[in-house]
Amino acid sequence: MASVSDEETVTLKLLKQKMRDFAQERDWEQFHSPRNLLLALVGEVGELSEIFQWKGEVAKGLGDWKEEEKVHLGEELSDVLLYLVRLSDICGVDLGQAALRKIRLNALKYPAPSPPPPPPQQ
Amino acid sequence: MASVSDEETVTLKLLKQKMRDFAQERDWEQFHSPRNLLLALVGEVGELSEIFQWKGEVAKGLGDWKEEEKVHLGEELSDVLLYLVRLSDICGVDLGQAALRKIRLNALKYPAPSPPPPPPQQ
Amino acid sequence: MASVSDEETVTLKLLKQKMRDFAQERDWEQFHSPRNLLLALVGEVGELSEIFQWKGEVAKGLGDWKEEEKVHLGEELSDVLLYLVRLSDICGVDLGQAALRKIRLNALKYPAPSPPPPPPQQ
Amino acid sequence: MASVSDEETVTLKLLKQKMRDFAQERDWEQFHSPRNLLLALVGEVGELSEIFQWKGEVAKGLGDWKEEEKVHLGEELSDVLLYLVRLSDICGVDLGQAALRKIRLNALKYPAPSPPPPPPQQ
Repeated sequence: MASVSDEETVTLKLLKQKMRDFAQERDWEQFHSPRNLLLALVGEVGELSEIFQWKGEVAKGLGDWKEEEKVHLGEELSDVLLYLVRLSDICGVDLGQAALRKIRLNALKYPAPSPPPPPPQQ
Repeated sequence: MASVSDEETVTLKLLKQKMRDFAQERDWEQFHSPRNLLLALVGEVGELSEIFQWKGEVAKGLGDWKEEEKVHLGEELSDVLLYLVRLSDICGVDLGQAALRKIRLNALKYPAPSPPPPPPQQ
Repeated sequence: MASVSDEETVTLKLLKQKMRDFAQERDWEQFHSPRNLLLALVGEVGELSEIFQWKGEVAKGLGDWKEEEKVHLGEELSDVLLYLVRLSDICGVDLGQAALRKIRLNALKYPAPSPPPPPPQQ
Repeated sequence: MASVSDEETVTLKLLKQKMRDFAQERDWEQFHSPRNLLLALVGEVGELSEIFQWKGEVAKGLGDWKEEEKVHLGEELSDVLLYLVRLSDICGVDLGQAALRKIRLNALKYPAPSPPPPPPQQ
């Protein structure tokens, strides 16, 4: 069902527009105040945490998880993302731009170590 | 500083790649286990909540917030996003594909009401 | 069903002991590692947030809430408390002592304003 | 510094009263609406999570933590508790009574296995 093009093309703007349409079609804009959306996001973070809560340390890649657990995880990760995108939109924040800026700030705060010098040439 | 093209072109894949490079350049991959990243995300959700905690209800668009408050908000929204992207990557979840799928599931769960019929013609 | 004595006598030590017994009787101690309990707590904070998420600003005392909503709220508040008590116990933290100490620290950090002087006497 | 009596005697009612006095003395009651307090609690849960975020799995008792880390942990656990107590009070929920009730409900939901029968007597 998913295609390679999904991965390449899902922009934050696309998600923002889909969330706008979704709310508008259901007349839900009245409920989408900043703090309502923030608490909804916290609720979804709770559901995400519940997936991990009794598992002890979890290996990267989730090699031993059942397929249905991974699908469920994808749903909860998405719920957090979608409320985050919607909250940003309602607050007038361009999340894509803010994220790129934050990565640049992080790079200034935590400079990468210099690569080792090249080996001497004879 | 921001350009229109930022908004249009920030894909989840781009953020995923930037987070990969960031961790790799600093040798931080060793710290990026699923539950470490999840708790880091919860920490950032806490910082996001702190921005809103004493404000009472907040109007859409944040009309009366100072510019520096909006910038700070963008940073905290971004921190949540970046850990979410990184957590998804480390778990092997294609977040863009999962988000589109979740929107489709939500549309099935909460069908939009039919538009009203067109007015009768004379 | 509740008696005045409940309110007076529920100590943190009592809750700690009840949680210990509960886990021990079910052989659940094996699951009660610090980070497992922390994520369970985050999950309950999420459920608590869901109660408030679409309500807009809520008045003190919840005057217009249905009785069943208030009961549900009490359950979610309790779930957070019980995991917090259990997490503290598993970490070897005396939560009652820590809470009293924190209140004293807060009082130093945020000194109360002096009361106004008494009115002049004639 | 801690006395046995602290552990024995810290009731939820005592903490509730201390939080009431603290707010009243500083004229902070105006800020203590249910959703403000809930978001403040989420903020403190975030700070609690930050303590655990890069640690990988943590052993019960925190044997290898520095004393100052344990003190810091006690402060963050307390901050969560104090906002939880205050939120409950502002919502008109008797947290001690609710917690005892929830433990009873949990015991019905998850019955303890019967103890094994006594060994046969000769």
